[in-house]
Amino acid sequence: MNITYKPIGIIRTPFKSGEGMPIQPTGANGTKGTIELKKEFTDGLLDLIGFSHIILIYHFHESDGFALQTKPFLDDKIHGVFATRAPKRPNPIGMSIVKLTHVKSNILEIENVDMMDGTPLLDIKPFIPAFDEVSSATSGWMTHPEKNLKNFKSDNRFL
Amino acid sequence: MNITYKPIGIIRTPFKSGEGMPIQPTGANGTKGTIELKKEFTDGLLDLIGFSHIILIYHFHESDGFALQTKPFLDDKIHGVFATRAPKRPNPIGMSIVKLTHVKSNILEIENVDMMDGTPLLDIKPFIPAFDEVSSATSGWMTHPEKNLKNFKSDNRFL
Repeated sequence: MNITYKPIGIIRTPFKSGEGMPIQPTGANGTKGTIELKKEFTDGLLDLIGFSHIILIYHFHESDGFALQTKPFLDDKIHGVFATRAPKRPNPIGMSIVKLTHVKSNILEIENVDMMDGTPLLDIKPFIPAFDEVSSATSGWMTHPEKNLKNFKSDNRFL
Repeated sequence: MNITYKPIGIIRTPFKSGEGMPIQPTGANGTKGTIELKKEFTDGLLDLIGFSHIILIYHFHESDGFALQTKPFLDDKIHGVFATRAPKRPNPIGMSIVKLTHVKSNILEIENVDMMDGTPLLDIKPFIPAFDEVSSATSGWMTHPEKNLKNFKSDNRFL
C-alpha cells in the first residue's frame, strides 16, 4: 500500500547544509524562516494568524535511507529510531512546532526554524495547548535535553 | 512532485465509524488502542518504553477530498483548514499525542486514542516536553477548547 502526498509549499530557512543546524526548534534561538505556500491553498490560511505557534509536517527531502537503531545527537548510546527524532526514518516525515509571526497572502513568516532550506511542506496545523501539551510527560532516555539543546548543532551523521 | 510513504503498521481502536468519536486525544478519556507495527520495524522500538507519551503521524484513510475553509467541531464559524485540525486536508495527515503504556515485541498498547480503527500509521516519535511544549502559546479562534472537549464527540461532517 502506497500513500502519496504532494507538497503544499516550501520552507525557506538559512540552512543550506545539514551540518551546523539547530536540532530542534527550541535550539533554533529565534532563527527566522518563511513558508511559501502554493497560491492555490491561500484560502486555507483564514484565521491562522491568531495562533502564536503552528505545527509543520514536512518531508526530510535530503534524508536517504534509514537505520532501525541509531545514535542521536543528544546521547552516545544506540536507540531505536522511533525513540529518537532523527531524520533517517522508515518514512522520513518531520514535525516541528514554530512561532508564527506574520501571514500575508500565501507567505508565512515563522521563527525557530530547524529544517533545511527548500524542505517540502506537507501540512500546517494550529498548535493548541489543550490538545498538544502533556504536562506529566516523561522523556525516557533523554533525561535533560534542555541542558545542551540551545547550543547544540548538528553534525553530518544523518547526511 | 509526489512524495510516497508506506504504512509502518496499523492502529487498532474501538472506533469503527467516524461518528461518536473523541475529536482529540484529550477528549478520549483514556480510551485504549493498540499499534500493530510491521514486524520488520520491531528493532526501531528500542528504548521507546521510557517515554510516557508518543507522537503518532498517520493517514486519515477515510478522508476523501478537502475544502480550504471549513466549520470545525468546536466552533460555528468558518475557518481556513490550516487553522483547524479537521481530517479533510490537502494532505490528509493526522497527528496525535497518545499515552504509551506497554511495548511487547511489535505490539504497542496506547491510551487516549482518537483515530479510526484500521488507521495506517506513518511514523512514531517520542514526545519530548523540552521540544514539544510551548507554554506561552495562544490558541487563536479556539479560545476555550478545554471547556467542551472532554464530552464532545464527532458528528458526520467530515465523512
